[in-house]
Amino acid sequence: MLTHFPPHEPDRMPPLSLAVRVGDLLFVSGMGPFDAEWRIARDDFPAQMRAVLDWLDRVLAEAGTDRSRIVKTNVLLTREQDIPEMNRLYAAWFGGGPYPARTTAVVRALPVPDFLLEIECVAAVG
Amino acid sequence: MLTHFPPHEPDRMPPLSLAVRVGDLLFVSGMGPFDAEWRIARDDFPAQMRAVLDWLDRVLAEAGTDRSRIVKTNVLLTREQDIPEMNRLYAAWFGGGPYPARTTAVVRALPVPDFLLEIECVAAVG
Amino acid sequence: MLTHFPPHEPDRMPPLSLAVRVGDLLFVSGMGPFDAEWRIARDDFPAQMRAVLDWLDRVLAEAGTDRSRIVKTNVLLTREQDIPEMNRLYAAWFGGGPYPARTTAVVRALPVPDFLLEIECVAAVG
Repeated sequence: MLTHFPPHEPDRMPPLSLAVRVGDLLFVSGMGPFDAEWRIARDDFPAQMRAVLDWLDRVLAEAGTDRSRIVKTNVLLTREQDIPEMNRLYAAWFGGGPYPARTTAVVRALPVPDFLLEIECVAAVG
Repeated sequence: MLTHFPPHEPDRMPPLSLAVRVGDLLFVSGMGPFDAEWRIARDDFPAQMRAVLDWLDRVLAEAGTDRSRIVKTNVLLTREQDIPEMNRLYAAWFGGGPYPARTTAVVRALPVPDFLLEIECVAAVG
Repeated sequence: MLTHFPPHEPDRMPPLSLAVRVGDLLFVSGMGPFDAEWRIARDDFPAQMRAVLDWLDRVLAEAGTDRSRIVKTNVLLTREQDIPEMNRLYAAWFGGGPYPARTTAVVRALPVPDFLLEIECVAAVG
């Protein structure tokens, strides 16, 4: 009844699935800003945001859904100053809406010191 | 399959729906403490808490449900000192229970500098 | 339609249910590191982590499910230094996988000053 979408390179990842499907809902882990070579664009918020959004697209596609079917996101940031840019890139990625429900918070730290953000989501699937 | 409840004054809001329904679940965005005139009661935690709870009532009603059918809440605060008052107002709002599941955390900041709290929830609907 | 799992000793707990079931999903509150005598192992992260995982086992069992059916977890910590140990204990608890989806964040504070972590989850049930 649960379908796990494990990481393709588990040695690089903590103990988690990228996403798990239950019924018609997909719960997606907080995606971090690694690029395709597992690098982090230190202090470059727009690049990190693009990397996170690319991860979301890949995970959603693997589970048979896409960004238009995201129900809820949580955006976790480490710097308040990045909120306006996050909103600009986020709105563009969703093509002007309709938008998911969302909560945004600035936390003290994310699991990797150079992370400036993570985004997790719940999406409809099937 | 997704039903979006967009904000009535989108120019005042970031790119999000107030809530999105999928199946019989409603995911409600983190509600901030704006009053009916879009003011924030700076440093007044009880007033901000009431404003947030009013938002929840309005959004739940628009989606055809109400506070008695909230399944889970997340309460995000920016000051530890507000936790006891939050619990008092929260318990009263739910009329002494039964209560939703809940997680409470003090974060470094919320999206608007004067916000002392936000509350998001998942509710049953339909 | 909602099934609440209230705390057995409500006077010791804030206004929340330990978990609430809606349909085939169980939403579990952020579990804190109280041991069986309601003590907190101050500054002892492994002991606190074990206490939290024991709470999760108890709550899941009461609702008729178990750790193998957890869909998503959120791990909230107050110290970055505890992340590696958290990952070790977490992976062992899940028996090497498959793992739930997960988001990890370091927040400024949790509801009780001595808490070093809380874990909440969504699980399949029924």
